[in-house]
Amino acid sequence: MLGRCAARALGALRGLREGAPPARSPGPSRRLLSSEKVSDENHSLPKPCWSKDMRLLFDQFMKKCEDGSWIHLPSYEYIATQRSQDFPTFIHASELINKEKLSQGRLFTKSFEDGLGFEYVMFYNDAEKRIVCVFQGGPHLQGMPGFFHGGAIATMIDATVGMNAIVSGGIVMTANLNIDFKRPIPLCSIVLINSQLDKIEGRKLFVSCNVQSVDKKILYTEATSLFVKLDLEKKFD
Amino acid sequence: MLGRCAARALGALRGLREGAPPARSPGPSRRLLSSEKVSDENHSLPKPCWSKDMRLLFDQFMKKCEDGSWIHLPSYEYIATQRSQDFPTFIHASELINKEKLSQGRLFTKSFEDGLGFEYVMFYNDAEKRIVCVFQGGPHLQGMPGFFHGGAIATMIDATVGMNAIVSGGIVMTANLNIDFKRPIPLCSIVLINSQLDKIEGRKLFVSCNVQSVDKKILYTEATSLFVKLDLEKKFD
Repeated sequence: MLGRCAARALGALRGLREGAPPARSPGPSRRLLSSEKVSDENHSLPKPCWSKDMRLLFDQFMKKCEDGSWIHLPSYEYIATQRSQDFPTFIHASELINKEKLSQGRLFTKSFEDGLGFEYVMFYNDAEKRIVCVFQGGPHLQGMPGFFHGGAIATMIDATVGMNAIVSGGIVMTANLNIDFKRPIPLCSIVLINSQLDKIEGRKLFVSCNVQSVDKKILYTEATSLFVKLDLEKKFD
Repeated sequence: MLGRCAARALGALRGLREGAPPARSPGPSRRLLSSEKVSDENHSLPKPCWSKDMRLLFDQFMKKCEDGSWIHLPSYEYIATQRSQDFPTFIHASELINKEKLSQGRLFTKSFEDGLGFEYVMFYNDAEKRIVCVFQGGPHLQGMPGFFHGGAIATMIDATVGMNAIVSGGIVMTANLNIDFKRPIPLCSIVLINSQLDKIEGRKLFVSCNVQSVDKKILYTEATSLFVKLDLEKKFD
């Protein structure tokens, strides 16, 4: 269940393929959006709260982008203030929601102050159909004292494999997420989430991933997932 | 991967069994805790941000608690400021974490302002080894516009099945979480998370759950999980 943010990244990616401005620009993605307030801040660019290691990994991947084999995916925050023109069939369900509360809608992964929650940047390799997400989790993602909450890890996995499904299949929804937590991840770690599109069968997309330490010596988590392309005629009410 | 909060609930539950003050009191749980700052606010008691429906469900379950068949589980926030004496074997891994950041540690499910994130209350039936969690998700848990993020749902599932494992087996860690997302859940909905301990095999605890609408007419999500009792001699470093 991914947000407009991902759809925007898909738009940006399409823009790149069409020779539009590079992913750092919010320009091409705007085509997908018409009905919400949007923050222009691209959260996948370095911020003061990023650690030295996070910045170093960002620079390394940006270097890989120079020959076009990797693409830096942008990441914007949205504030949903009204019905989405992109998801017209969801209108009925949305009408069940308290309008005032809906106006406060914030993307889950962007609803923390800088550095306290989810800081991440994703890079996509189109030839290999895979994404690497560099994730720096903040102190407000704690579960067992000193470690990330399993739900926070599940959230970043969902965001990463979901993005991989979106850039491969368009607008999708998470149908299954199967996560093996092998080792707890120390709070405030930086980890790599390596996602891979395994196969597409009709409307189904199968994506797997793992979560590793930056030096790749520790395998923290493995996961498989199933995404289904949305049938825009179907109502979820 | 559950936090001190759950361990505290277990302590409170044990206190009840030993004839200690009722679960509303933070007293009995204190036995488990020695090394962190604790907020005394019990988040599982009604708050102004709870909707009328949430309050109604709370009252209905509190009535079920009167004959002792159900127990209202308390829920506290913790702020981890130093090493945990309850998890001594995690010390080495914790030392890898930036001390300043660790001091900002907040339980993931309690790191939102009232009403914007996770509002929930859990009730435990000891005879049936099951928990019902009444969950009111706030607008900052959004994924696809107008709906909860899959990661937010995974987080509440992890918290609920994890609590079920803890009250049945002591200190545990999530080993596997397998979630089928059947229908998207409208943002700001109140839902019931019904968790059930299925079996215990040695150190393994198997817990399943589903997420339903309050009227039980809509099945949103189903999940299975595996928890492993912690070997306190094992290091995660």
